[in-house]
Amino acid sequence: MSTERYVIGVDYGTDSVRSVIVDTADGREVSHSVFNYPRWEKGLYCVPSQNQFRQHPADYIEGLEHSIVDAIAKAPGGCAGKICGIAVDTTGSTLVPVDEKGIPLSLLKGFEENPNAMFLLWKDHTSVEEARDINNHARTWGGTDFTKYVGGIYSSEWFWAKMLHVLRVDKSVRGAAFSWVEHCDWMTGLLTGITDPLRMKRSRCAAGHKAMWHTSFGGLPSEEFLSSLDPLLKGIRARLFNDTFTSDISAGTLCTEWAARLGLSDKVVVGVGAFDAHMGAVGAQIEPYYLSKVMGTSTCDMLVAPASEIGDKVIRGICGQVDGSVIPGMLGMEAGQSAFGDVYAWFRKVLMWPVMQIAPGIKGLDESARKMITEELSSSILKSLEREAAQIPVGESGEIALDWFNGRRTPDADQSLTGLIAGLNLGSDAPRLYRALVESTAFGAKKIVDRFESEGIPIKGVIALGGVAKKSPFVMQTVSDVFNKKIKVARSEQACALGAAMFAAVAAGVFPSVSEAQAAMGNGFEHEYTPNSANSALYMKNYNRYSKLSAFFEKERVEE
Amino acid sequence: MSTERYVIGVDYGTDSVRSVIVDTADGREVSHSVFNYPRWEKGLYCVPSQNQFRQHPADYIEGLEHSIVDAIAKAPGGCAGKICGIAVDTTGSTLVPVDEKGIPLSLLKGFEENPNAMFLLWKDHTSVEEARDINNHARTWGGTDFTKYVGGIYSSEWFWAKMLHVLRVDKSVRGAAFSWVEHCDWMTGLLTGITDPLRMKRSRCAAGHKAMWHTSFGGLPSEEFLSSLDPLLKGIRARLFNDTFTSDISAGTLCTEWAARLGLSDKVVVGVGAFDAHMGAVGAQIEPYYLSKVMGTSTCDMLVAPASEIGDKVIRGICGQVDGSVIPGMLGMEAGQSAFGDVYAWFRKVLMWPVMQIAPGIKGLDESARKMITEELSSSILKSLEREAAQIPVGESGEIALDWFNGRRTPDADQSLTGLIAGLNLGSDAPRLYRALVESTAFGAKKIVDRFESEGIPIKGVIALGGVAKKSPFVMQTVSDVFNKKIKVARSEQACALGAAMFAAVAAGVFPSVSEAQAAMGNGFEHEYTPNSANSALYMKNYNRYSKLSAFFEKERVEE
Repeated sequence: MSTERYVIGVDYGTDSVRSVIVDTADGREVSHSVFNYPRWEKGLYCVPSQNQFRQHPADYIEGLEHSIVDAIAKAPGGCAGKICGIAVDTTGSTLVPVDEKGIPLSLLKGFEENPNAMFLLWKDHTSVEEARDINNHARTWGGTDFTKYVGGIYSSEWFWAKMLHVLRVDKSVRGAAFSWVEHCDWMTGLLTGITDPLRMKRSRCAAGHKAMWHTSFGGLPSEEFLSSLDPLLKGIRARLFNDTFTSDISAGTLCTEWAARLGLSDKVVVGVGAFDAHMGAVGAQIEPYYLSKVMGTSTCDMLVAPASEIGDKVIRGICGQVDGSVIPGMLGMEAGQSAFGDVYAWFRKVLMWPVMQIAPGIKGLDESARKMITEELSSSILKSLEREAAQIPVGESGEIALDWFNGRRTPDADQSLTGLIAGLNLGSDAPRLYRALVESTAFGAKKIVDRFESEGIPIKGVIALGGVAKKSPFVMQTVSDVFNKKIKVARSEQACALGAAMFAAVAAGVFPSVSEAQAAMGNGFEHEYTPNSANSALYMKNYNRYSKLSAFFEKERVEE
Repeated sequence: MSTERYVIGVDYGTDSVRSVIVDTADGREVSHSVFNYPRWEKGLYCVPSQNQFRQHPADYIEGLEHSIVDAIAKAPGGCAGKICGIAVDTTGSTLVPVDEKGIPLSLLKGFEENPNAMFLLWKDHTSVEEARDINNHARTWGGTDFTKYVGGIYSSEWFWAKMLHVLRVDKSVRGAAFSWVEHCDWMTGLLTGITDPLRMKRSRCAAGHKAMWHTSFGGLPSEEFLSSLDPLLKGIRARLFNDTFTSDISAGTLCTEWAARLGLSDKVVVGVGAFDAHMGAVGAQIEPYYLSKVMGTSTCDMLVAPASEIGDKVIRGICGQVDGSVIPGMLGMEAGQSAFGDVYAWFRKVLMWPVMQIAPGIKGLDESARKMITEELSSSILKSLEREAAQIPVGESGEIALDWFNGRRTPDADQSLTGLIAGLNLGSDAPRLYRALVESTAFGAKKIVDRFESEGIPIKGVIALGGVAKKSPFVMQTVSDVFNKKIKVARSEQACALGAAMFAAVAAGVFPSVSEAQAAMGNGFEHEYTPNSANSALYMKNYNRYSKLSAFFEKERVEE
């Protein structure tokens, strides 16, 4: 009889979901499978120029089934029988309006094509005005400041702003929405069969960081606060939740339907869900006072510290401080940049415009040549830029950028801010622009480090994970130089899914605590970047320019 | 016996020289020829990232001979015998160090490859520091403010700044330079054989707008001012010039050598030279209180008004007010943008980077396909961008730019300023960036109009000439909308050369005055742009943002 116990970590990213089967004995990856969201891939329901980004629940459901079934199929025989737990992480705040049964409205007749009835993706910034209203109200209404544990500024990327925006702009959704559910909670509800919005186990992480839930408030912001913010919110509080749960807790076992769809036992435990970066930080072996940076399209920066050491201290301008949001017993602090790799992807897209736009219309150009050049350009632009940019001496370049292409998440959330490239002259070629963009993302990252430190939270080390951390030595060295700190890169290719797997193992009872799961299942680190201190000093001149530009554009926006 | 009298206008632009043979009876073009500078085309002697732009005199000499000989060859037989005058216009301030005989140092042994011994092209901005020193000295030295007739701010694009820069950085040139000569004067000297720097007839236009020459100063700035600015300038004033001449004056006749090289009579009169935009304004039939805009890589904006109506009034922040610099008896006022079409060319170059950089290395890609795609992209990018940008509703776009990619010429010269693109988000695609760049150049143009008007110089009409005026309806309509003024486009394809031809005709005695030459030889207008007043109003929001950004970056530079 085998004593092997496997768990599945399901990681919903922006473009795809990956399911990873992990051996709880040593954290070894047994198999994995990735599924790209088909509707999202086609650009459906999105209006990038207005920062509207929506995802259809069918993309998530298909992805859940395909990725798990495929991962099991790829694993050695007998795998399914060894699986004892599943946990899901997702992006967030990514929420959906649901009916009384917890069914997303976009799965109901009449709402199938309505973007307001779908999940509002983390990076959707259509609710800038609502965030502003929430902030104004929080400061002026006279009662408790419910923003105090989310950094003092509520963001348009978050739960209440997005909900209020849809309630304001879409009468049909307003009429049909009974409650609202975060992506991570909805997936867990689907797997356990407990989709009732009043009964499902809601994630502490999502609620605390995005919905202003806090034990000292007795849960969510008061009915009085909400209904005076906007009468459209009247009564919604009672249709949401009071209790929240950390992810070491079981949310239930697989329901009959999904046990059958996945080919698994209905004894498999499903852990409470959480956000990707939070589980990723655990997967990358976060420890107290280490900054764990998930560096992908955006960044999510997690920091944990024993709750007892922080006490009542309030950290200004971050995305929240929540007891147990990362590791039970620790205060989880979140920060991040709204665009990181997305900034480089933006530049690639701009540079690809001519060939995408013009090449198809060139008469006499062979179709295979057109395809070859398009594909080769697309796949090698960033590598070429990186190679050329690395040749430019540090501190020589006059070009300077602000990385706020998708607004600013932290410090001091403001999604109405925009990106910029300055210091341009007729010799500012593509590599120089790229270098300025990379530096801007590093400067934006340093602003977060500086904020933690100026708020009295020391940073003892930096851990990096995610696509950029793995793939771009140039970016990583720049960040290390700008920080003047060492950065360890987690070995796991799937740190978020590995973290989810660790939580699944704890929820399923394999380990008594998250730290024991980390010790047994951790994959360690593959590389450490060491800052070049001469370059660190040279970068400070442009960092000061970055700070001055920041101050001007913050002020300009206010005056508009 | 034929009574036909032809003249040759020779127009030295940034990339090429064109010679146009014109019938003085009606301004009809008999023939023309264009010659691209071969050394310049290869990028020799230039460092674009440091704004160093130099041209070798051999490019000019070869161009003079080839373009005139070729134009004569293309004309109907007997043309050479009908030619009675030649005049030359050039870019400026484009000056060269010369020896006692007026030979550019780069034509002497040991200096052949030294960029400091060549012509410093108008757009060379290596002397930003020297311009700053001149401005500081002019304000603090205690004597006459010699900058007062050049707008109150001396520019790094001009005569003394460039000269001082070379004297400071190049000991060998410092030792060998006897005097300094503007391009337009040197060509005229070459044709007449009077190259002696102390005897050649210097252009009023070049001297007044760029070298702070003014009758009220008794000519150039005083020896005391110059030697206290920098001891390196000690004695140079006496090796330059006291008198200057308007371009209706004969500088002499063709010397034997050049009469032979060109196949012309040594009776042919050579008029005093001037700058391209000044002669171009005449060619485009400038009249009092009309703004004549040469719109090409940069813009040169000329305005004339009867000297008697302006009197002692000093116009702040323009590139000079010089009696007779455009039309004898009129005060010629100059302004302009350091980069205009160059801003679009910059963007094209950035967008071409991937295909230029990566396509040559793609294995398996057919050479002819590579060439086809490169050429097609290069030639059609701007057209495609223009078509797409025109679809974006006015006032919708959040992207905004500053057009100072080559510094700012006017108002308030400051070549240390740089370009910028702000308001960027992840949906900012290439057409939106292009639109923002076009708007920025239109806003920069409006700043000049606003300055003339706020200084009490009314603008009764706008005349456009140059490549952009002819080729880009989108840009022209945007400028007309932003100005909220009509813009007439001169019909002549070669307005600068036509203007030079008009001056040649006056110098040769065919007409008694410039206005009579204009009346007889003018080519009229091919089109008039009319502003869309709804769009004019919409543009004002971004124009205000442009103004605020301008103010910030002017201030930031000062604080650096």
